[in-house]
Amino acid sequence: MNKPPEKAPPDPGVRERLLASAIDCFDRKGYAACSVREIVEAAGVTKPVLYYHYGSKEGIFNALMRQAMDQFDELLERASHSEGSARDRIEKLFGEVFDLFKRSIPLVRVMNSIYYGPPQGVPRGDADRVHFAFQEWVKKRLVEGRNAGEFKIAKTEDAMWALIGALNVATELELCHPDLALTQKDLQRVVGVVFDGIASEEGRAPRRAAKRR
Amino acid sequence: MNKPPEKAPPDPGVRERLLASAIDCFDRKGYAACSVREIVEAAGVTKPVLYYHYGSKEGIFNALMRQAMDQFDELLERASHSEGSARDRIEKLFGEVFDLFKRSIPLVRVMNSIYYGPPQGVPRGDADRVHFAFQEWVKKRLVEGRNAGEFKIAKTEDAMWALIGALNVATELELCHPDLALTQKDLQRVVGVVFDGIASEEGRAPRRAAKRR
Repeated sequence: MNKPPEKAPPDPGVRERLLASAIDCFDRKGYAACSVREIVEAAGVTKPVLYYHYGSKEGIFNALMRQAMDQFDELLERASHSEGSARDRIEKLFGEVFDLFKRSIPLVRVMNSIYYGPPQGVPRGDADRVHFAFQEWVKKRLVEGRNAGEFKIAKTEDAMWALIGALNVATELELCHPDLALTQKDLQRVVGVVFDGIASEEGRAPRRAAKRR
Repeated sequence: MNKPPEKAPPDPGVRERLLASAIDCFDRKGYAACSVREIVEAAGVTKPVLYYHYGSKEGIFNALMRQAMDQFDELLERASHSEGSARDRIEKLFGEVFDLFKRSIPLVRVMNSIYYGPPQGVPRGDADRVHFAFQEWVKKRLVEGRNAGEFKIAKTEDAMWALIGALNVATELELCHPDLALTQKDLQRVVGVVFDGIASEEGRAPRRAAKRR
């Protein structure tokens, strides 16, 4: 175990610099191939500084994961107090999630490489927890929308998966085919196809009339 | 370059055994970490036999990819002559693709680890080509369905992505959350939500009446 120095030198922004250089190195070389030396050199600090703040390479990776999960949790939390119809609220959150995803591409690549890649000696993190929380949030809105007569849904899970599938297409293209990337407007239209599929008869006609002539 | 032996020993099934042991090794250890020695030992042959049939580790990987792509191409080709409504034909192909996916999980894991993982010195293969062909196939059916009055679609791409998103949910759960895996019936219902979203008014009513009371 590396002992931290008695007292960290005052260096504002050092934590952010370490996170940024770690994510860059993990993304370029893969988690396993990236050394602590490379991370600290790019951040312009010495090894003990990394050990002081994050304990280890795994510690800095976990901090990156936690940061991303916290941002996601924050979105969900705020979305729980959003206003409007169930469709409005889902559309709004989807837009925000898509936006967060776009801003997190390097980290997403690292997470995917750990998730899908050969074992690299790092825990999978709790991406699962976040996924489940998101699914639950969507399901709740669907139930509320159904109870309010906004939706006509035979099985909530089906509508939930269809909606999440539409969002996943947007995030996957962003990641794997930036040349085909969807805009926020494109995403809303794709999601709109699913909403049309669950709109109650009352909800359907005016939207069609208003938005599609 | 490894010279193949003058003549391969007659050993029926050796190619299949080599493919099977390669996919198993790639899946367990990752492409880069898996050695030719391990592959041939598990297949019960010697190195020159692998070199004779596949040239190299990369050659055997490419053969695995080609086999999967060929199976996919075959599905698409047969689906181009399928009969029924556009919805019927899309549903049928989606079911077959989902089925092929389920049978190819170890290879999919290897492909994902190469696609998402750190560089492993192997070409990405032409998974892209297959994806594009699939997208085009779906788009064609959507246009045919719209022209036949079966669908009401503002923008074909939107419906295509919504449908493909629904299929992707099924394949992703199969891969990452076998505990939540969808059945073929589940998949058809999720896809059905999207079809409801693009059904023409004429197509909608009887289906609703028949299937959902």
